[in-house]
Amino acid sequence: MGKVSVGWQKFLHEPLRALQDGGLLLTSVDATGRPNPMTIGWASHGIYWGQPVLVVMVRPSRYTFGCMEMTGDFTVSVPYPDLSEQVALCGTRSGRNTNKFEECGFTPENIDAVRSPGIEQCGLTYFCRCVHRNDVLPSQLDESLVRACYPSDDFHRFYYGQIVETLADEDFSERFNT
Amino acid sequence: MGKVSVGWQKFLHEPLRALQDGGLLLTSVDATGRPNPMTIGWASHGIYWGQPVLVVMVRPSRYTFGCMEMTGDFTVSVPYPDLSEQVALCGTRSGRNTNKFEECGFTPENIDAVRSPGIEQCGLTYFCRCVHRNDVLPSQLDESLVRACYPSDDFHRFYYGQIVETLADEDFSERFNT
Repeated sequence: MGKVSVGWQKFLHEPLRALQDGGLLLTSVDATGRPNPMTIGWASHGIYWGQPVLVVMVRPSRYTFGCMEMTGDFTVSVPYPDLSEQVALCGTRSGRNTNKFEECGFTPENIDAVRSPGIEQCGLTYFCRCVHRNDVLPSQLDESLVRACYPSDDFHRFYYGQIVETLADEDFSERFNT
Repeated sequence: MGKVSVGWQKFLHEPLRALQDGGLLLTSVDATGRPNPMTIGWASHGIYWGQPVLVVMVRPSRYTFGCMEMTGDFTVSVPYPDLSEQVALCGTRSGRNTNKFEECGFTPENIDAVRSPGIEQCGLTYFCRCVHRNDVLPSQLDESLVRACYPSDDFHRFYYGQIVETLADEDFSERFNT
């Protein structure tokens, strides 16, 4: 089944459901050009500066952090429910010592505008160019969330990705919802 | 028609369409407790720190900025298409010299958890408690967006609102889409 370009706002319920059920896959590339997928459960989606954006957060300790800082782009893929094992692997192993993309049997999906690939096995991928970044500020975060989410003071950086392309399987919604 | 409490993720397409077609209404209260609605066209929606969030941005020059800093809560209401005049008024007048809530003929909709009211005439309102704030960093923003959006260096502050309640008209979707 081939991928088709769709409007960034076409699918809203499926990505949010996947975010809550195991996670989405944030893919960036490292200095050698190797893609590295990381599972994320926190993200937001909307419009800033008149542009469609996906805003993801990454802790400085993650392998992905160095990748994002280097390339300035990323993709976010929405996995089908039957990829739950791969999603779990991408959430527990590090790209420092594992080629997660290869271990998952993923096929890269490339477009010209960004270096980070999508994942062919996922039904929907947003290709994003980083247009802004800022940090979680501990002094400005609710104290109970500081305690619950940052026992090691490893505060996230937010990456604001302008969505430059959205590719989906033609039957994405049907396959995702069965 | 009475309001009912609904899941924060129940309606996704309608708020995004309203955001793009005129805007949503961000309401906060000032030091005297008077509600002040402001039209916004930029926002995002998702999950951070395990909480459902709506992230809005406000320029320091706006009357709303002082309100947000003071009360630490806000609401975001999704207007029906037939409220386009009120939405335009709330986007062009300032709460400094206009009681926009009253001029629009809005009725406040209160809940115990936050001080900022919703707007009964709107079909859907998210009630949010501010749990984090940080700023647009000019050095970290794409240069073309700095030029396009900030000719006066009036960089926005982001307010991360944990959604504590979502109230909707029982027939919201039908009314919004007709």
